[in-house]
Amino acid sequence: MGKEWETKITRVKSNELLIRGYRLDELIGDISYASGIYLILRGELPSLSEERVINASLVASMDHGVTAPSAVTARTVASSVVPITTAMASGILAVGDHHGGAGERCMRFLQKELNVGSEVNLATLAKNVVEKTRKDKIRIPGFGHRFHTNDPRTTKLLQIANETKIGGIYVEFAQLIAKELSNQSGRSLPLNVDGAIGALLADMGFAPELGKAFFAISRITGLTAHILEEISTQRPMRTIVPEDSVYSGKSERKLK
Amino acid sequence: MGKEWETKITRVKSNELLIRGYRLDELIGDISYASGIYLILRGELPSLSEERVINASLVASMDHGVTAPSAVTARTVASSVVPITTAMASGILAVGDHHGGAGERCMRFLQKELNVGSEVNLATLAKNVVEKTRKDKIRIPGFGHRFHTNDPRTTKLLQIANETKIGGIYVEFAQLIAKELSNQSGRSLPLNVDGAIGALLADMGFAPELGKAFFAISRITGLTAHILEEISTQRPMRTIVPEDSVYSGKSERKLK
Amino acid sequence: MGKEWETKITRVKSNELLIRGYRLDELIGDISYASGIYLILRGELPSLSEERVINASLVASMDHGVTAPSAVTARTVASSVVPITTAMASGILAVGDHHGGAGERCMRFLQKELNVGSEVNLATLAKNVVEKTRKDKIRIPGFGHRFHTNDPRTTKLLQIANETKIGGIYVEFAQLIAKELSNQSGRSLPLNVDGAIGALLADMGFAPELGKAFFAISRITGLTAHILEEISTQRPMRTIVPEDSVYSGKSERKLK
Amino acid sequence: MGKEWETKITRVKSNELLIRGYRLDELIGDISYASGIYLILRGELPSLSEERVINASLVASMDHGVTAPSAVTARTVASSVVPITTAMASGILAVGDHHGGAGERCMRFLQKELNVGSEVNLATLAKNVVEKTRKDKIRIPGFGHRFHTNDPRTTKLLQIANETKIGGIYVEFAQLIAKELSNQSGRSLPLNVDGAIGALLADMGFAPELGKAFFAISRITGLTAHILEEISTQRPMRTIVPEDSVYSGKSERKLK
Repeated sequence: MGKEWETKITRVKSNELLIRGYRLDELIGDISYASGIYLILRGELPSLSEERVINASLVASMDHGVTAPSAVTARTVASSVVPITTAMASGILAVGDHHGGAGERCMRFLQKELNVGSEVNLATLAKNVVEKTRKDKIRIPGFGHRFHTNDPRTTKLLQIANETKIGGIYVEFAQLIAKELSNQSGRSLPLNVDGAIGALLADMGFAPELGKAFFAISRITGLTAHILEEISTQRPMRTIVPEDSVYSGKSERKLK
Repeated sequence: MGKEWETKITRVKSNELLIRGYRLDELIGDISYASGIYLILRGELPSLSEERVINASLVASMDHGVTAPSAVTARTVASSVVPITTAMASGILAVGDHHGGAGERCMRFLQKELNVGSEVNLATLAKNVVEKTRKDKIRIPGFGHRFHTNDPRTTKLLQIANETKIGGIYVEFAQLIAKELSNQSGRSLPLNVDGAIGALLADMGFAPELGKAFFAISRITGLTAHILEEISTQRPMRTIVPEDSVYSGKSERKLK
Repeated sequence: MGKEWETKITRVKSNELLIRGYRLDELIGDISYASGIYLILRGELPSLSEERVINASLVASMDHGVTAPSAVTARTVASSVVPITTAMASGILAVGDHHGGAGERCMRFLQKELNVGSEVNLATLAKNVVEKTRKDKIRIPGFGHRFHTNDPRTTKLLQIANETKIGGIYVEFAQLIAKELSNQSGRSLPLNVDGAIGALLADMGFAPELGKAFFAISRITGLTAHILEEISTQRPMRTIVPEDSVYSGKSERKLK
Repeated sequence: MGKEWETKITRVKSNELLIRGYRLDELIGDISYASGIYLILRGELPSLSEERVINASLVASMDHGVTAPSAVTARTVASSVVPITTAMASGILAVGDHHGGAGERCMRFLQKELNVGSEVNLATLAKNVVEKTRKDKIRIPGFGHRFHTNDPRTTKLLQIANETKIGGIYVEFAQLIAKELSNQSGRSLPLNVDGAIGALLADMGFAPELGKAFFAISRITGLTAHILEEISTQRPMRTIVPEDSVYSGKSERKLK
């Protein structure tokens, strides 16, 4: 017998499974997967508003097409003919500080600046923060995007943040920073999708360690779709040039 | 310019993203993550019944405690001090034929036997299949479990299969096989959680290639919880003996 | 105390390490890394001839430029900004049945055919094997290459196989198959570098399971060079198009 | 045609391969794998002394038994039944800041302190450095070991460093630090194997980025041996408790 160590996640007995205190067979069918994700990571079930924000954030990060490094990686590895989970894992390895990492870095940035400047009001703090980073030539993570000048995902997420009242001090601070960046630089550098999700996760009390993990939990879905498409429609060992891809899927259609 | 190649998943234009034909900003907030997973993998949105089964199946596979090889792996790798996504990927690598693979192998087994024996009725087919595998000393994947003799997850999933009418020929065939296994062997070898999910995925028309992937999409959540707990509560480089773990989480509590 | 299990690789006591029975501090400085690889995998030290063949085979597989799937993968993952070992592992994941797997499949093919046809002479056996695979439209693994019609690596490896007398029945059989493929098809389909290494490993008694592993033990070196070059000379998150690469390294130079 | 980018590692033409300017078919059979590793990472062939140190360092890190996190990981993943390269990659993922990372952190530490204090003599510098780190309660990476108080690998490596004259200012500085640690703390905290290799790599001019990579290039060999042993001698899905292992390999034997 070695040294005991504690875990609070799952209790496994024969014919009986508890996750965070709830019987798994009760959870099955009664909660959404989004709620399950929140529960297992946080220890409690989300409110309806939190569940809506989690669903929205996970849907928002599912995929960004074949040029994302994780998609290129997963397709390339799949093309060598390996088990599907090996290719999925390779795509997760491509999530790094510069791909899928902006949300976490944005969370950390916002938390650090809010701690330091708690005595001033948010607008003044945003102004000071932007001045300082501009002087130090530091790019604030979570603002601006290489493809999108006006990211439709951010707009929708901020709308949901507002409707659900989940958006709190972090979302507000992030939006003030975006405004200041625009004012001081004279060009638009809006909050991007990673920054918006990072601010929302911070407002819900997620640890910043989970920022990149949350992205990976969502993106693994898109990666799986890419891998399945690669092995179903392409020959093995091809050179995958993302720029040569042509979208041949469904035309734009309305949700309802 | 190289040779064009086609993709049907996501269309990326500046400020405009389509997933399977739907504007991503419309999907955000309007569909659940479970529906998003179904959509991106299958190309169409699920019915409400399908969505319920997807949610149930993903919740069912989220975690099975610290003894699962993927949990041991993810914790061990996290213990060496690496990025959280590196540890998550390592856990996904531990999903193999013998861990998380039973659902996929069950799907393939059921599909193969149903194709062959299409002229006889299901009960006779199940009887013949069990006789043959017993003679050949082959273990049918998806039946029996090392921990559970009466897996509460399976019971609940089959109940939902029934309620939603998603359970079709595969679920029925799987249940007949379980009955035959019990009759012919004299001991209980019930459909396990992987087998039940495999049969449900087959009834919804999922490709068997996605069986293991579906498990990984769900289990990545539990792995993330294990990694977060490991780095938050344990020192680096410890030897992780699953058997020495003690559950110190919430006591059993009711869902509502 | 759990159930004891046995290992024959390394004995670790305080201030004392044995690898396969040899004190590690004796091995350090007295054997080459190639001999160490042979020792730890096989349990005994190689002969001088075997050591030469191991060195030759490992040098032969170190790299094949930026178009190899493993190099694309490792560079893409490195480009997302992750630890160097995370990028190395991703490259190893890209070693699959169609990339780095030909040697192992060749070993298995040769072993299977030699077992079956032990009563006939090798030349007849090669003739029959090629006839059968041509009729069944099966491509024998380890023959032909997408880039090279006359692979200089194979020529050199076969020369060393001959000089060292390590080349035995597998190398001979592989060469007879190449001759038959050329005779029967009318076009050259020579033994490639993976096939030559596979045949040599088989002649030295390596288990076929180690074929792909041996490739990975060698290729990890080239992958590391690619990762280091990527992070030293390129900006993060670039799209890596192998075809757009230009060699700007040292011009051809003589070894001595 | 995209934007050209440069690579200096390998030139691939049909039937012609150059690595760092040398024809690969000339390298095969004429250089050792250790020299190949040095060449591909550094761009030039090593001297005989450098080659000896590379061989010694790679042999030294090959394995440290079943308790190393990378060995536990690779065995656990192999136990789920996956391709051998998938298990190898998982083991590499377990190389992190606290496992296999001490050499790199030691290189960085020594380089930083030597840059800062270039005006004083090494012994004084070592004294100051140890005083400072003791005051700040910082543990200098590369000193002390959880198993070994007098690591036989270090002793042998330092002897080779001396014989080959490869040991330079970094090895000397590291040894002075070890002496100071002992003097000031009153207990032995000797240079460990990772620290010794780190100092030697620094003296040969390796970039610190390669510290962890170098460890992984060596350790992948031991991992492969563990994976092969696991799949050859154990049943799938077992719980692997390193402490329950018993060494049943060759008894101690002399090298010659």
